[in-house]
Amino acid sequence: MLTIKEIVGYYTAKFSVTDFHLEPSGLYEPMEHIMSIPGKRIRPLLLLLACDAFSGDVQASLSAAHAMELFHNFTLVHDDIMDDATLRRGIPTVHEKFGLNASVLSGDALFAYAYKYLCEAPVHYQPHIFQVFTKAAIEILEGQQMDMDFESRLDVTVDEYLKMIGYKTSVLLACALQTGSILGGASIADQMNLYNFGLKLGLSFQIKDDWLDTFGDNAKVGKKIGGDIIQNKKTYLLITLLLEAGDTDKAALLKLFTEKNEDKKVEGVKALYAQYNISEKTLDRAEALYNEALTSLADISIPDADKANLRTMAKIIHDRDF
Amino acid sequence: MLTIKEIVGYYTAKFSVTDFHLEPSGLYEPMEHIMSIPGKRIRPLLLLLACDAFSGDVQASLSAAHAMELFHNFTLVHDDIMDDATLRRGIPTVHEKFGLNASVLSGDALFAYAYKYLCEAPVHYQPHIFQVFTKAAIEILEGQQMDMDFESRLDVTVDEYLKMIGYKTSVLLACALQTGSILGGASIADQMNLYNFGLKLGLSFQIKDDWLDTFGDNAKVGKKIGGDIIQNKKTYLLITLLLEAGDTDKAALLKLFTEKNEDKKVEGVKALYAQYNISEKTLDRAEALYNEALTSLADISIPDADKANLRTMAKIIHDRDF
Repeated sequence: MLTIKEIVGYYTAKFSVTDFHLEPSGLYEPMEHIMSIPGKRIRPLLLLLACDAFSGDVQASLSAAHAMELFHNFTLVHDDIMDDATLRRGIPTVHEKFGLNASVLSGDALFAYAYKYLCEAPVHYQPHIFQVFTKAAIEILEGQQMDMDFESRLDVTVDEYLKMIGYKTSVLLACALQTGSILGGASIADQMNLYNFGLKLGLSFQIKDDWLDTFGDNAKVGKKIGGDIIQNKKTYLLITLLLEAGDTDKAALLKLFTEKNEDKKVEGVKALYAQYNISEKTLDRAEALYNEALTSLADISIPDADKANLRTMAKIIHDRDF
Repeated sequence: MLTIKEIVGYYTAKFSVTDFHLEPSGLYEPMEHIMSIPGKRIRPLLLLLACDAFSGDVQASLSAAHAMELFHNFTLVHDDIMDDATLRRGIPTVHEKFGLNASVLSGDALFAYAYKYLCEAPVHYQPHIFQVFTKAAIEILEGQQMDMDFESRLDVTVDEYLKMIGYKTSVLLACALQTGSILGGASIADQMNLYNFGLKLGLSFQIKDDWLDTFGDNAKVGKKIGGDIIQNKKTYLLITLLLEAGDTDKAALLKLFTEKNEDKKVEGVKALYAQYNISEKTLDRAEALYNEALTSLADISIPDADKANLRTMAKIIHDRDF
């Protein structure tokens, strides 16, 4: 088995320089821009770790791994249009820097290039990989629509929320892991275990992410704490509070939605969170999902030692406080 | 060999009702809307005719044929955003009816669904089909970028223009034909002949389309004649005139670009077209490309009788005056 560092090394050696110095530059420069924003490349890494866990050919799987990263960046570019976002990790979004038309078209091209790189996977595995990837792609787009639909609703249930973040966030992690295991020659049962490992890990990650936005350490998270509260964002915390709050507290919460004083708003909502133990309930749920992820990992029929890298990655994702 | 009518019948029996009655409706309703606008379904038809010409299994190829139509509609939805178009065949565009976010996301989903239907093609042919289709997809997006780039240029050459319309319009016809031939088990040489047949036919079609916009019969074309002239659109006619006009006439043309009186503008540009025989030159080029298409068709190594449907389609496309 390779080390995580070796696998990261293989990937960055092949794809550290994006290769979009192509014409027409109006199409390729925006692609280059988004791909150059430093990121953790977590999706390709998960694919390669899963492949390696089943003793698959990591070198032959690098292109499929890159497809996951290209697809992820496609969703970032188009989501930024829909959210009218101006900054991503402190750098102007494609939409902001190059305009609407360039962001629509270069997003499309990132999507197409994801398939181009998938076409470089070993031929034998391609039909299955195309099917798994395309299913994930459709679910991710459905998740984005659900997210937008939720903005105007106050009656979103926890199950609906979990389905939405599952589609929007977890499915691509799960798809990357399953694809890696396909490339490693895993059985269908083990592919499903890895898929579920990714799905639960992604849900745990997103719920923790919601928690950090309200209860995290300002200095570590690197963005203003309370942003979700200020935007009335339907997070796991807010949805749980909306479902559990009594009539008087719910009325107080709805009044806070229109509070202009940001500090007062954040303090007010946090007081309600405290009253209903929302912080603990949220962390409990994230922990439970993390444990479900580990159970799926434990169910995989390879020696425990071969799961070490995947377990390490899960722990890194779980333990983060930023 | 099946008749064209039989093949159209098979396709419409399977795909006349689009199957996007799915949730979330905010994503699927716009897809249903664009797919319900009546169209000629020329791309799936070409795929199925090519498949049948090589005695392929037409029923097993219907989904791949539908993928071409879904992809085509994806490009329409996103092009309408970029052109800020409000109507398509007299019906509101997705952008106009459902808004920007819905048109970005439902366009993405049409792209993803094209791949979903390709995944239903016979497994044996999938890797090759995915490669051919993905290459076409990337070229089509590049073509759209070139088209936008040309708007601000006065020095576009005929070769550049042919490359742009080749990418933007012809490549999907060529891809559909090649894909059909792959599904019919054609040799690589015959696949390339069919690809070139589609490419040249598409170029001929687009140049004729440019001609019709200026010299067509108002009643038949069904839109205002001279629209391209009014918009200073870089058509085959205008590019040829810009390249051939002497300094005085070129200056007169550039002055007409800003003429506010539309009738005066159309008459002025048409007078310059007449002076430089642009109408004849344009029709000659369309005719030459049509003949090149027929030469590629003639080169295919199947009995001449089996090419009858493809020849009929080429003639229909070539002879149209609307």
